[in-house]
Amino acid sequence: MIVTSTEKTIKEPRITLVGAGPGDPDLITLKAVKALQTADVVLYDALINEELLHYAPEHATKVYVGKRSGDHTYSQDAVNRLMVDYAINYGHVVRLKGGDPFVFGRGFEELDFAASYSIPAQVIPGISSSIGVPGLQNIPVTHRGLSESFWVVTGTTSSGKVSNDVYEAARTKATIVVLMGIHKLAEITEIFKKEGKNKLPVAVIQSGTTDNEKVAIGIVDTIVEVVEEKKITSPALIVFGEVVSLHPQFQPIKEFYDITAEG
Amino acid sequence: MIVTSTEKTIKEPRITLVGAGPGDPDLITLKAVKALQTADVVLYDALINEELLHYAPEHATKVYVGKRSGDHTYSQDAVNRLMVDYAINYGHVVRLKGGDPFVFGRGFEELDFAASYSIPAQVIPGISSSIGVPGLQNIPVTHRGLSESFWVVTGTTSSGKVSNDVYEAARTKATIVVLMGIHKLAEITEIFKKEGKNKLPVAVIQSGTTDNEKVAIGIVDTIVEVVEEKKITSPALIVFGEVVSLHPQFQPIKEFYDITAEG
Repeated sequence: MIVTSTEKTIKEPRITLVGAGPGDPDLITLKAVKALQTADVVLYDALINEELLHYAPEHATKVYVGKRSGDHTYSQDAVNRLMVDYAINYGHVVRLKGGDPFVFGRGFEELDFAASYSIPAQVIPGISSSIGVPGLQNIPVTHRGLSESFWVVTGTTSSGKVSNDVYEAARTKATIVVLMGIHKLAEITEIFKKEGKNKLPVAVIQSGTTDNEKVAIGIVDTIVEVVEEKKITSPALIVFGEVVSLHPQFQPIKEFYDITAEG
Repeated sequence: MIVTSTEKTIKEPRITLVGAGPGDPDLITLKAVKALQTADVVLYDALINEELLHYAPEHATKVYVGKRSGDHTYSQDAVNRLMVDYAINYGHVVRLKGGDPFVFGRGFEELDFAASYSIPAQVIPGISSSIGVPGLQNIPVTHRGLSESFWVVTGTTSSGKVSNDVYEAARTKATIVVLMGIHKLAEITEIFKKEGKNKLPVAVIQSGTTDNEKVAIGIVDTIVEVVEEKKITSPALIVFGEVVSLHPQFQPIKEFYDITAEG
């Protein structure tokens, strides 16, 4: 094979942080697809549907850098360094992340790292599971008469503890969506019990928008049991709030406990 | 022209509530585009980019039912009735809404109305401006060391008052995103001042992700003035929180006020 000088074109390094949405590959945006189509390298997380990689050119390098709680294939530092190295050597790096890059995605750290190497970087938002996953279960995060706001909190902070924000959230009337909190469900429900919210409706949704989707509907007092019964595991999100009472599976619970929304 | 019986096929009525995202037409999902491609009727709101209507078949009826604060072209009841009438008479109605249908979009009321006529209805989530618009300004709603949660509140409740949730939110360390609050900006900043948050960073973003995008960056004490200077008007969202300090325009403000994040 004769290697000509045109085969080694120098490409401008650039990075695009792309939110892939909650799981269903059709919940990605057109803008994200267009970014993938011009990728030289795709660095993708766990929970990314691999079908999405087909939007990238065949010659593009696809690297799994999957991070899930308990399975740190690559550290954040290693991901940052890979991202910059690939951009410098290959051109356009698409960093494909689940949900939205800025909702507990450490996206800004990646942007910041790119900036420290003067590599142009942009972000493409994705459907956050915090809104989209309850929505596809017909649980609206806001609804007139039931909720004028929603508060999205992480169940697992960098220190491993339940965020203080969960304690504050439990005192309010907001719809509370807890991401990455399934392993602390019992601890989190205790916080709501201390606020006297034993009958507050709760939903736990595992693997929302995928074929493995499972849902548990209950109240603060019962949800741990329902989740065990249904064998629900990570990844899952938790929704606390009167809006959960709109889910069809809540009707028998409402009748059993004679719950009326506080409004 | 000879009219044959096959020309008048009876179509099953169905309704799809579709979130179009914050404005940039490329921020719509593939799933939403597929729904539009099979629409017989599209009922679309104000703030919808009309380019999106081209995804619907040429024969599809496109009806503007624009609702913006102060410009209620159609009441919610009228929209509900139109939606059901069109579904019964024409088949597949796509109800195209800005952002996500369940983030202050009254989407559940529309689903509920469809259900009361036994018309099958489904929802397709959209990028919520609450996350996507700050994100595209490189303001992450969460960031390690600065924010472990974000709280999305409406500035204008059905009663016309500032939501009680804004008062509660002002006491917390969450990133606070206020939608539909620009006309009450002075009143809302007073709430933060009463909590002693005079130097909390604030961003106001008008028409995010569109050609008319404008941004004002300041602190609680100065933001009303900056917004007036920049002639920012509705539609706009407000972000309160330490994460706003990451915006490049915040650097000179930081130096001027000698602000250090509380962490």
